[in-house]
Amino acid sequence: MKKKSFSIVIAGGGSTFTPGIVLMLLDHLEEFPIRKLKLYDNDKERQDRIAGACDVFIREKAPDIEFAATTDPEEAFTDVDFVMAHIRVGKYAMRALDEQIPLKYGVVGQETCGPGGIAYGMRSIGGVLEILDYMEKYSPDAWMLNYSNPAAIVAEATRRLRPNSKILNICDMPVGIEDRMAQILGLSSRKEMKVRYYGLNHFGWWTSIQDQEGNDLMPKLKEHVSQYGYIPKTEAEAVEASWNDTFAKARDVQAADPDTLPNTYLQYYLFPDDMVKKSNPNHTRANEVMEGREAFIFSQCDMITREQSSENSEIKIDDHASYIVDLARAIAYNTGERMLLIVENNGAIANFDPTAMVEVPCIVGSNGPEPITVGTIPQFQKGLMEQQVSVEKLTVEAWAEKSFQKLWQALILSKTVPNARVARLILEDLVEANKDFWPELDQSPTRIS
Amino acid sequence: MKKKSFSIVIAGGGSTFTPGIVLMLLDHLEEFPIRKLKLYDNDKERQDRIAGACDVFIREKAPDIEFAATTDPEEAFTDVDFVMAHIRVGKYAMRALDEQIPLKYGVVGQETCGPGGIAYGMRSIGGVLEILDYMEKYSPDAWMLNYSNPAAIVAEATRRLRPNSKILNICDMPVGIEDRMAQILGLSSRKEMKVRYYGLNHFGWWTSIQDQEGNDLMPKLKEHVSQYGYIPKTEAEAVEASWNDTFAKARDVQAADPDTLPNTYLQYYLFPDDMVKKSNPNHTRANEVMEGREAFIFSQCDMITREQSSENSEIKIDDHASYIVDLARAIAYNTGERMLLIVENNGAIANFDPTAMVEVPCIVGSNGPEPITVGTIPQFQKGLMEQQVSVEKLTVEAWAEKSFQKLWQALILSKTVPNARVARLILEDLVEANKDFWPELDQSPTRIS
Amino acid sequence: MKKKSFSIVIAGGGSTFTPGIVLMLLDHLEEFPIRKLKLYDNDKERQDRIAGACDVFIREKAPDIEFAATTDPEEAFTDVDFVMAHIRVGKYAMRALDEQIPLKYGVVGQETCGPGGIAYGMRSIGGVLEILDYMEKYSPDAWMLNYSNPAAIVAEATRRLRPNSKILNICDMPVGIEDRMAQILGLSSRKEMKVRYYGLNHFGWWTSIQDQEGNDLMPKLKEHVSQYGYIPKTEAEAVEASWNDTFAKARDVQAADPDTLPNTYLQYYLFPDDMVKKSNPNHTRANEVMEGREAFIFSQCDMITREQSSENSEIKIDDHASYIVDLARAIAYNTGERMLLIVENNGAIANFDPTAMVEVPCIVGSNGPEPITVGTIPQFQKGLMEQQVSVEKLTVEAWAEKSFQKLWQALILSKTVPNARVARLILEDLVEANKDFWPELDQSPTRIS
Amino acid sequence: MKKKSFSIVIAGGGSTFTPGIVLMLLDHLEEFPIRKLKLYDNDKERQDRIAGACDVFIREKAPDIEFAATTDPEEAFTDVDFVMAHIRVGKYAMRALDEQIPLKYGVVGQETCGPGGIAYGMRSIGGVLEILDYMEKYSPDAWMLNYSNPAAIVAEATRRLRPNSKILNICDMPVGIEDRMAQILGLSSRKEMKVRYYGLNHFGWWTSIQDQEGNDLMPKLKEHVSQYGYIPKTEAEAVEASWNDTFAKARDVQAADPDTLPNTYLQYYLFPDDMVKKSNPNHTRANEVMEGREAFIFSQCDMITREQSSENSEIKIDDHASYIVDLARAIAYNTGERMLLIVENNGAIANFDPTAMVEVPCIVGSNGPEPITVGTIPQFQKGLMEQQVSVEKLTVEAWAEKSFQKLWQALILSKTVPNARVARLILEDLVEANKDFWPELDQSPTRIS
Repeated sequence: MKKKSFSIVIAGGGSTFTPGIVLMLLDHLEEFPIRKLKLYDNDKERQDRIAGACDVFIREKAPDIEFAATTDPEEAFTDVDFVMAHIRVGKYAMRALDEQIPLKYGVVGQETCGPGGIAYGMRSIGGVLEILDYMEKYSPDAWMLNYSNPAAIVAEATRRLRPNSKILNICDMPVGIEDRMAQILGLSSRKEMKVRYYGLNHFGWWTSIQDQEGNDLMPKLKEHVSQYGYIPKTEAEAVEASWNDTFAKARDVQAADPDTLPNTYLQYYLFPDDMVKKSNPNHTRANEVMEGREAFIFSQCDMITREQSSENSEIKIDDHASYIVDLARAIAYNTGERMLLIVENNGAIANFDPTAMVEVPCIVGSNGPEPITVGTIPQFQKGLMEQQVSVEKLTVEAWAEKSFQKLWQALILSKTVPNARVARLILEDLVEANKDFWPELDQSPTRIS
Repeated sequence: MKKKSFSIVIAGGGSTFTPGIVLMLLDHLEEFPIRKLKLYDNDKERQDRIAGACDVFIREKAPDIEFAATTDPEEAFTDVDFVMAHIRVGKYAMRALDEQIPLKYGVVGQETCGPGGIAYGMRSIGGVLEILDYMEKYSPDAWMLNYSNPAAIVAEATRRLRPNSKILNICDMPVGIEDRMAQILGLSSRKEMKVRYYGLNHFGWWTSIQDQEGNDLMPKLKEHVSQYGYIPKTEAEAVEASWNDTFAKARDVQAADPDTLPNTYLQYYLFPDDMVKKSNPNHTRANEVMEGREAFIFSQCDMITREQSSENSEIKIDDHASYIVDLARAIAYNTGERMLLIVENNGAIANFDPTAMVEVPCIVGSNGPEPITVGTIPQFQKGLMEQQVSVEKLTVEAWAEKSFQKLWQALILSKTVPNARVARLILEDLVEANKDFWPELDQSPTRIS
Repeated sequence: MKKKSFSIVIAGGGSTFTPGIVLMLLDHLEEFPIRKLKLYDNDKERQDRIAGACDVFIREKAPDIEFAATTDPEEAFTDVDFVMAHIRVGKYAMRALDEQIPLKYGVVGQETCGPGGIAYGMRSIGGVLEILDYMEKYSPDAWMLNYSNPAAIVAEATRRLRPNSKILNICDMPVGIEDRMAQILGLSSRKEMKVRYYGLNHFGWWTSIQDQEGNDLMPKLKEHVSQYGYIPKTEAEAVEASWNDTFAKARDVQAADPDTLPNTYLQYYLFPDDMVKKSNPNHTRANEVMEGREAFIFSQCDMITREQSSENSEIKIDDHASYIVDLARAIAYNTGERMLLIVENNGAIANFDPTAMVEVPCIVGSNGPEPITVGTIPQFQKGLMEQQVSVEKLTVEAWAEKSFQKLWQALILSKTVPNARVARLILEDLVEANKDFWPELDQSPTRIS
Repeated sequence: MKKKSFSIVIAGGGSTFTPGIVLMLLDHLEEFPIRKLKLYDNDKERQDRIAGACDVFIREKAPDIEFAATTDPEEAFTDVDFVMAHIRVGKYAMRALDEQIPLKYGVVGQETCGPGGIAYGMRSIGGVLEILDYMEKYSPDAWMLNYSNPAAIVAEATRRLRPNSKILNICDMPVGIEDRMAQILGLSSRKEMKVRYYGLNHFGWWTSIQDQEGNDLMPKLKEHVSQYGYIPKTEAEAVEASWNDTFAKARDVQAADPDTLPNTYLQYYLFPDDMVKKSNPNHTRANEVMEGREAFIFSQCDMITREQSSENSEIKIDDHASYIVDLARAIAYNTGERMLLIVENNGAIANFDPTAMVEVPCIVGSNGPEPITVGTIPQFQKGLMEQQVSVEKLTVEAWAEKSFQKLWQALILSKTVPNARVARLILEDLVEANKDFWPELDQSPTRIS
């Protein structure tokens, strides 16, 4: 019986990630056949440049796939099985401000952690809800596979504001780290590992890693990580310097709890000062990306569109993103794949807020994710996670209630922010910088000396 | 690489189930190779009659397996990978009293439900702990696969009194009912179904059943069960009348909650009067088994031992018990099989006592079971389960504290017992009947008029 | 400074309790000055006969109090500080059916316990919500002091359907039993006792009783109750036979848990058979009341109205109801009185459903009740209470969702109902009997053989 | 009937607080009669200088009180009704190091908050347990009234390591702040206020303050505090500059949550930088106290002992400490006084760790404290409190398990410590400084770059 083929819309078509993901989808048509692929964005000019290249890729590799790029929600979201969402409200320009404003006050300036993540979240909530509503309006049976950042705040927002929506929140960081673990262990693929992991998004720990036979791989990994972090002795693939620092820093982050292996983003919470020291407040990661990947991708796309051929294209298949296909297939074919998803806790972590959105192993089938219980977590992780989940929940409360006070409280609570005064100064700058993107907040009744 | 082969001891070697299970093990040597098989029992005379036949089976079908039957704990439990426990403290004679005493007062008289289950539990706790202690003394790395009844009370006792023991509590009733569901659905095996189920042992509900592609099979099953119970239109295999009544009664039990499919044992709690009406206080199920299966198995074993051949044997392979092999393989080879096990709740059912032993789907690997979260259960099931788990916990508290009062409270709480007076009368009879098996209870300070 | 005086409306003016309560209010004007007293009922003819007498009482004892009896909600609920609610939807006639229908099937027939309480609850919810809405419409700052039965179901309904309403649910049974305890102990008033108590309404236990100096009075009380129940050696006041049986039966109920002293209503759950045995299905307590108190009160009221004098009145001050004044004063004057109220659990009982309405000691002030924590309750009480609270919650869910199925589940769960079939038969009779009072339930999809 | 009089031992007799407290006790003999007063300390030389003066006070004011100062536990703790504990293990010298070491790294250096509190806690646990064990050995019916700091860590330690001990943990900070609130409101005493408050010790918030009639005093207080902090317009009593800064800083701390009024210690967590800025790493509060109060008290005591008269004594009655008498009287006479105590949460705060030691209003009687439920707390306070309670619990776990790793985790988690590296550096210095007082910790397996 010929496998059913699917209709996909990529929300955030103008993203620099779109070409690599389209190539990845075209590379997995065997397992995941596609009949229709659409790009949707609210920035027509930007999306058309990306779409030009994707059109060439598809005509060359799978001409029978119906392809369209549109800014019309009805066209984009009608007759769709899956929405693959990687939107970035405010694009890199706003990300630069997210990073630079905190650094002005000596505070971590990062895309999803600390004040930057809060600012980015306050922009993203409206965007993700909008797309979710389009999906439910035009394709009520569709699923949204959301890997838009900051996933933690977006996931809490969809839990609170769209509790019954068919949205799966997933993050690629654990995938990337597990790829490195596999290299460190000499395995051919991370899929040879069975892992137990828990935390919030960008804020978690591996507690058990076995091979297929059930042998415990943690001792070997811990031994390696305690010396080299997540840098394999022989790098399969060269990475940018800043990523290399991150994987090396895992060494110190792991020292804080030798019983586990940490998600690398914890560096921003446990060693914020080190992060600030190596940041340039006037030229942050966002600037690197704009000058690096964004420039590269758009120049390549223009060239492919111009030459109506991908022959000279240097754009690589983003196979690292194949977890999106795994997730889509799990829903489509009830595969029961074991994947880390961001889901409502509801008892999975026994001694943690049942309404928190936690990142835990799930068995994914056509009915969605079945979280696997974690049990009780140690006090160190509970203390860190309760603090951080309160930041995320207060941010969503602030967005929903247009509350300056609650957003200030979110910043005060963040482990990356040293005190309430700096929190207030950063917030006032962020309000100003985001006035075109955030809901208008009520005026805080309180001043501090 | 030649698969590792295992050493097994069957605790309760003298059980009538042993021959069928040994035949089943011999039928599954391909997937689960065995190097040594021992029977252990504290009733030498009874075990030797069973062992005689098993010896013949093994010599005929797998002569290289080292076989022994012993009443010496050290011999039995040394160099063992798995203990397969199906003990019955007090044998069928006491089960007959468990059933007859309550019936004397018009109350359900059943092996594991109501006062009978409480009495049986009070006998079994000591027996299971004893075996567990032998295992940990002589083979500290071994696992106990316990399907001794009453599994709910035994599981609560091991949780409370041996919290760190490597014991897996499992029950074959859901396996049996799922076999029938598969027949009703026209599937070749229950393993083609992916199920979601929750409850206490002998006290649970299926909430979702899909085929491999994720299609919802519940509507079809509910339609069938609401008319015929768990009786397929064409019975694959004739069953005893009393089992047939049970599978038919599922029809009425299911009516109490049309959203789910019930475990058949719920009939004793929702329709106790019907159960009592069709029981004969002087000739209960235990008597049927003694006159039926027990007599049959022992005569067959004597014959096989006499003829030193299984040629004329009518003892069938108990393939229904192959779930035991599935469980052993999951531990041995880290298969990650999805099975219903009785595990500590600890958040799996979000709105239920975290310390309750609940029967839920688990992913089973070499580290043991990983329960899959159930989420929040409806008020009807919560009310029934909280009442019943209190019966089970009070029984274990009564055993541990030798408390007549707590055992009376357990009986008062049972849905099968109409009032505190009858609970008291039954308890006093059971105390008398079990004085050789139960711990000696303190004298209750209270009388009732 | 002259104490503020209050405006009261008694909802359920036509109740036989109204005259005694009015006399009690007039007897407590010193502590609780009243400027305006209104009676409200939806049965004008019945209320006018009661109002006639009350008019005489007020003119004789406190002529400056403005008095009115009305069936007009706006008039009744405008300019009101307190609504004192003792409504009985369906009056005694329906209560008779509540009691007789279950008895037909050998099941407890009682006003607030078992099927009778469920039926009464299904009538009362709408009535209490209606009054609450009138109060909030016409006197938004007022408080409703609700002692309408069945208080447990009414309290759960107001929690779920009017979560922010200023309603205090209180019951007089503990007050009555504590009065008797005081007599047993030789104290002049129950107010010399400091008690710790927990449970659901009509379903609780005293765990600690001290005198003012902190001496433990439990041993002496337990000693007495274990022999005589709640019957003091010398009765201060003769009670009706049925009440006497109830207070005597406490002896057996207490035996089920010698560590506590029980609420007498537990007799219907622990000794339902004894209750049924002494009931006459054709002449229940409701009939006794109609023939007894109801006839007496209305004849007395007619006489007082006729004679325009209370001189020959035999209607007594209902000082037992002075707890209503205590509660009103606590709100009015922020007295911080310690009283048993029915409040949302929310942690008061640590190991019990946080959304359950539980009866626990509270400190009552102008902001309402502050529940005192109970801590963790034993397994016996938890099992009983979880079962019973599920009955109450399912009844309110059934009312809100018009669900025949959920009401059947409520009856199945009740400890007083022996099995699902009898539950179904009783339900079908009750549906028929209450078609003028209950919401119209959907048709249950299920039949049982 | 002549009131019973009591035997008291003050543990930490050599404390500078002892004279003021003894004078306070002598000033309250009417409400709390004392027959025997003993001082106990393990520093004889220091205690004798204090005892000399106390001996004079007692002979002058209540000669019939039996007085003794001893370093012998049996003598001190025999025939005792109450142990009043204000011990300081390591005295002010170690407190100076607690404050100076963190300041070396730009981190808050304070007696009970941040690294200083953790270091002080690691010294105090052993000391308080020792005294508790003496009390239970020699006067098993006695109660310990503990106001030794750091009360939060000491309370968690006694909860975990002595769960059944009769110890009441109380703190005087809320008392001091409520005194100031009363002045701000123009009330004669804080006892005219009924408060609702929750938090951890030195980490809480007032949520409701009423006068006796139930009028809401919060608006007026919030208005004042948002401008002047806790500084009344006319100071009843001049305070030291550092205390004045603290009460003024409440203004900024309150801005973080305008719905509540904060405990002043929150300044160290919300404005750590401001605290560090005004600290002199070489001359901290401990030095001020040694040079100030300690020198003053010991010189005064020497003079009183020399002159065998208190005539020229400038030592004031520490009436601020009369809360200790209130607490003792509540136990002794079952007064049911409403006081803030540090008790096991166990549901009092519904959405917070049930095993946390929380500071909440309690009704105190002869059976000990009955916590009043708080209900659910907002996300901001929950985030802050979960982080801080994890610091406290990890400190006690580190003490009990002699774990360097867990103590490092406690420091990492503290909101006052900027990152894991500084946490590590501070810890290594504190280990060195406290080697005579802390248990010897295992060596951490981990290093950081």
